[in-house]
Amino acid sequence: MITDKLIDGIIGMQNPTCVGLDTLFDYLPDDMKEGVTTFEGVAERVFDFNKKLIDTLYDIVPSVKVQIAYYEMYGVAGMKAYEETLKYATEKGLVVIADAKRNDIGSTASCYAKTFLGETKVNNLSLKAFPADYVTVNGYLGTDGIAPFVEECEKNEKGIFVLVKTSNPSSGELQNLVLENGKPVYEYMGNLVEKWGESTIGQYGYSAVGAVVGATHPTEASLLRKALPHTFFLIPGYGAQGGNAEMLKSCFGANGLGGVVNNSRGILTAYKKNGGTYYEAARKAAIAMQEDLSKTIGVMKK
Amino acid sequence: MITDKLIDGIIGMQNPTCVGLDTLFDYLPDDMKEGVTTFEGVAERVFDFNKKLIDTLYDIVPSVKVQIAYYEMYGVAGMKAYEETLKYATEKGLVVIADAKRNDIGSTASCYAKTFLGETKVNNLSLKAFPADYVTVNGYLGTDGIAPFVEECEKNEKGIFVLVKTSNPSSGELQNLVLENGKPVYEYMGNLVEKWGESTIGQYGYSAVGAVVGATHPTEASLLRKALPHTFFLIPGYGAQGGNAEMLKSCFGANGLGGVVNNSRGILTAYKKNGGTYYEAARKAAIAMQEDLSKTIGVMKK
Repeated sequence: MITDKLIDGIIGMQNPTCVGLDTLFDYLPDDMKEGVTTFEGVAERVFDFNKKLIDTLYDIVPSVKVQIAYYEMYGVAGMKAYEETLKYATEKGLVVIADAKRNDIGSTASCYAKTFLGETKVNNLSLKAFPADYVTVNGYLGTDGIAPFVEECEKNEKGIFVLVKTSNPSSGELQNLVLENGKPVYEYMGNLVEKWGESTIGQYGYSAVGAVVGATHPTEASLLRKALPHTFFLIPGYGAQGGNAEMLKSCFGANGLGGVVNNSRGILTAYKKNGGTYYEAARKAAIAMQEDLSKTIGVMKK
Repeated sequence: MITDKLIDGIIGMQNPTCVGLDTLFDYLPDDMKEGVTTFEGVAERVFDFNKKLIDTLYDIVPSVKVQIAYYEMYGVAGMKAYEETLKYATEKGLVVIADAKRNDIGSTASCYAKTFLGETKVNNLSLKAFPADYVTVNGYLGTDGIAPFVEECEKNEKGIFVLVKTSNPSSGELQNLVLENGKPVYEYMGNLVEKWGESTIGQYGYSAVGAVVGATHPTEASLLRKALPHTFFLIPGYGAQGGNAEMLKSCFGANGLGGVVNNSRGILTAYKKNGGTYYEAARKAAIAMQEDLSKTIGVMKK
């Protein structure tokens, strides 16, 4: 059960961190960018960069989140680098989150679910397209856009994270609208998530259907933590977006569990601020983040 | 201005239709599927199928919508077929809608916007990843997740369609929730869309920021048509999903303009029901749809 596996990793490393491999080509050191004039060239260098980062981090962080936008923007070759990154991270034992925020009507959602969490049929064969442990999804279309993902979660021990309260400044525009019953939209979405997860609750009490809850919105996070006892949180917004350990503390329960905190730019581009090689700087930044989080959240335990 | 171009095509052909190239491998005739055992094989056949369909339809339909899920599920090779399909449809003069329902925080939305509507920087070069005329987007994250798309629309004469009231059965779960001011969520989203489009209104009075409004929900469509005078609609749900011409009539104004109606399965798989080659059957189905729509909507004019 994938959320159990993720939590095992978090407890083992005492680190509820997810490194975001949002590897914009511009983030690479100048010598790695030199002479590149094609998407194929970009894809090769981006994968090299990711591979070295994964090699440097997999013993101290339990998971990575790979944001598909930063690969798709380099065309077909970029998607090849995406596939290779997912596979390499999986090989190294990391829990891999495909950050794709997919959403569509049932028949199409079923294709997306198979793409990231299952297998695609080709005549009598079943092949994998972009295999990950989790994929992020957007619930604006309601249950029949989410059910095909939950089905793959049940079948293949996979998971999803549904957008509930996102980390960006204007997230409140729609998500904080107040309904006629006095509750905000994000809480309603959170309750749907809790319900969607009912069939997949693991040994730690969390389901395979998690929620995206931004570190930048502590009030909402606190309300959601209480309202959604079986929902594990993917928490973006730490670092570059302005979130910090104190702000996201309320996402975690008394046993130090409840979520995984993403950091992308703060790890990938640490070398630009602190010097050294990109991978040494990334490791230092990841260690500093682990210390910051564990100091604030406390010991993570069963 | 892209919505003007789309409307010119609609008026010229008296056909407010968009053919959905949701080309599931299983939709192909048996002889095209035979012997295929890899994603590369699938991609080649799917593109051949699309190419022939485009050749058969481009003189009678003004636009195509290419649903990315049906390509991504065939991995990197599938994405190559996606790129080729977008490019070939563009070459033939069709208005091309990338149906990708992208959504993310501002910095990431900016990558998606460049991927589909603009150019990606690689050192001193600018290259195109998956170039289309429109991309569909999901507005759950609010203005700062949409603004980067609008920026590319302004810069490159491109457009977007934002999910407002989707065609699927459970779309009401979130979209029809009533806010404390007595209005439903979908209307609030629609009003945001109208506002996002303000800077891009063309000669027909419609902006480059359109709305997805399902043919399956006539009451909501009618309300939205009145509330959003400058918003052009992308109308899914005709045919296989249960929508018909009468149900979507209220999306159109007195001059027969106001939206473009998508049909995917009803065109792609017409041969399975009516016999003949897939492309002849598709052309007949497209002609029947044109007659059905124009009879109900009336003459489309300036």
